[in-house]
Amino acid sequence: MPDRPFLRLLPGRDRRVKAGHPWAFSNEITMTPAAKALPPGSLVRIEGDDGVKHGTWHFNPHSLIAARRLSPDPTAACDSAWFLARLAEALALRDRLFDAPHYRLVHAEADGLPGLVVDRYGDVVALQANTAGMEAATPMIVDALRALFAPRGIVARNDSAVRALEGLAEETRLLHGDAAGATVQENGLRFPVDLVGGQKTGWFFDQREHRARVARIAQGATVLDAFCHTGGFGIGCAVAGAAQVTLVDRSEHALATAMQAAAMNDVAGRVTTQRAEAMDALERMVGEGRRFGVVITDPPAFAKARRDQPAALRAYGKLARLAATLTEPGGFLFIASCSHHVAPGEFADAVLSGVHRASRSGRAGAAGRDARVLHMGGAGLDHPLHPMLPESAYLKGMLLHLP
Amino acid sequence: MPDRPFLRLLPGRDRRVKAGHPWAFSNEITMTPAAKALPPGSLVRIEGDDGVKHGTWHFNPHSLIAARRLSPDPTAACDSAWFLARLAEALALRDRLFDAPHYRLVHAEADGLPGLVVDRYGDVVALQANTAGMEAATPMIVDALRALFAPRGIVARNDSAVRALEGLAEETRLLHGDAAGATVQENGLRFPVDLVGGQKTGWFFDQREHRARVARIAQGATVLDAFCHTGGFGIGCAVAGAAQVTLVDRSEHALATAMQAAAMNDVAGRVTTQRAEAMDALERMVGEGRRFGVVITDPPAFAKARRDQPAALRAYGKLARLAATLTEPGGFLFIASCSHHVAPGEFADAVLSGVHRASRSGRAGAAGRDARVLHMGGAGLDHPLHPMLPESAYLKGMLLHLP
Repeated sequence: MPDRPFLRLLPGRDRRVKAGHPWAFSNEITMTPAAKALPPGSLVRIEGDDGVKHGTWHFNPHSLIAARRLSPDPTAACDSAWFLARLAEALALRDRLFDAPHYRLVHAEADGLPGLVVDRYGDVVALQANTAGMEAATPMIVDALRALFAPRGIVARNDSAVRALEGLAEETRLLHGDAAGATVQENGLRFPVDLVGGQKTGWFFDQREHRARVARIAQGATVLDAFCHTGGFGIGCAVAGAAQVTLVDRSEHALATAMQAAAMNDVAGRVTTQRAEAMDALERMVGEGRRFGVVITDPPAFAKARRDQPAALRAYGKLARLAATLTEPGGFLFIASCSHHVAPGEFADAVLSGVHRASRSGRAGAAGRDARVLHMGGAGLDHPLHPMLPESAYLKGMLLHLP
Repeated sequence: MPDRPFLRLLPGRDRRVKAGHPWAFSNEITMTPAAKALPPGSLVRIEGDDGVKHGTWHFNPHSLIAARRLSPDPTAACDSAWFLARLAEALALRDRLFDAPHYRLVHAEADGLPGLVVDRYGDVVALQANTAGMEAATPMIVDALRALFAPRGIVARNDSAVRALEGLAEETRLLHGDAAGATVQENGLRFPVDLVGGQKTGWFFDQREHRARVARIAQGATVLDAFCHTGGFGIGCAVAGAAQVTLVDRSEHALATAMQAAAMNDVAGRVTTQRAEAMDALERMVGEGRRFGVVITDPPAFAKARRDQPAALRAYGKLARLAATLTEPGGFLFIASCSHHVAPGEFADAVLSGVHRASRSGRAGAAGRDARVLHMGGAGLDHPLHPMLPESAYLKGMLLHLP
């Protein structure tokens, strides 16, 4: 058995861990002075008060989620070879699911690598270590990735706010090779991806299926893509044959990248950009009486914390109201939420009540804008869910038809 | 205003109708002797106790769902031209969504035609009238379909148990032309569809996206398709390159149709059938130690009524346990439920606990078979949801990866 520290669960606090949950909270562990003194990111064994062994974990005495299970095996080495095996499993699954090597390669707990996110853009890789344990393991992870498919470049995009909970700084740095000029391929399109620039201009793989679904209905339509980021939705619509696409985002850098993507995909002539706070721009367009055949709104998370949830639901309702008002009769509205703190049912209710309020001047007797839900779903297949962490299904996308 | 009977909602019982719900229950309506005497399927106007007009409805004094709204407009004609307009809207939406004319053309309330279901198989159409109102309107619906796209044949497949609630008999009959030799085209495949035979051998369009998703991962795999019906999942896998596909169903007729489909798609050499009660067959295969790369179980509804729900959840748990045991390490399990009376969260919990119980002989310390949820979703885009009837989202499909 490897020589590693050993922690005991508190009496009566082992129910979740026994059921297979991959986390142990700080108030479930006997926090001895020795435990408190362990360096963040230490490998530990955990046992129940009843002596049952619960495997090998990453431990951080300063974090509320104090331990994350790496293996049910208390003797697991968790060395370079172990990381190589986990990453090889994750790679085999993605290669089964996708034709091109562009995907979320590791989705944390659901890939048996708690706190680690790895996105692959062909020969360039971006990783994010969200725990002290994965921060410490980063050199082994880099070695494993190089052994598996020899990427040209590997970047640490450790710019996630959750790192602060583990006492880690936000940073972006090159871990290996060269990551300049990366591109992402999705649904047959190609987009530039700036992984080394200071701004958050990566790619959100989670919307892959939603983008394909929305593009399918955009043929011949005028399209508004608000909160467009680098244009994943809107440019997909243009390539699928949309007549005209308007991209709106607050970030000049994102819009410039989007226009690069439009040029790469030969649709720049049908794409225009508008730099603005998207909610303000929608309000202004409503005032101008503008209408679009397809309206897309994929905003950043409105609820960063549970306490923001009521305000976020009001904001989603307002966004849905504005977007529905801008959707022509017979048109389509796609609206998404990536807020962890807003449940799918809550989001759907907020959106539908917003749509319902969008117009009171419709057909005689109608209380508001009519709607049919064509689709409601979450992230793509490269974002698996750990069965004990259903709350990690953060993405919610709704496609509505507005007769 | 058309001369038609007029019903009043009971005082204080108009909340749901005011909010836009398309149903009025019998205990929400002032059931005067005149109302009770109306022929089932009558067109009526409904007003609130406050005099607010709530539009035009189909009424059946003998049904718990006594009235279903056709239009918010109390003067709507609801004649042939009106049905033609509704069907033209439904057709325009499907033609936007799909490349080939094979889809659910009308999905009842969500297409503004409460109680009516219409499936289109190219030039052959099957319709189901689940209310007395739609039964009475059937000749107008047939005329409208003929005017819209001149189908070769139209069949009434009124073999749904819900017709009994409206006092209607179950029956299958030809309404127009000839429906023999119909085929359905889906995800690039072709299947024979027997619409005139006595057995339920139509096609379940709702699984279209799930079938495509499962086929994508089946390349090179051995596949078990239990409750296979006419082989939509399994034959899709064979065409996508599965090494070997085993189809299991209790119906000899369904299996014969499946083998016809296998031949039509040039994969008969890799498809075998087994006639058996699927649950028994799974149990037997577990006893024999059989393993498959992909296991598919798409059973008929286990809960026909709300009171069946606890037994249904136990049955889904058992099905998941057997199916997971038959899935080889690194394999995939797709499991579906079409029970209205089982909610998505309840279904997911039953499945995951069944998978968890599937094996206690795994890795040291593992409590059961590990699982990742790759996808969980409902019916395809041709099954829109009315926003006030979220409970009509009956289909739940889960795709799991079992490391």
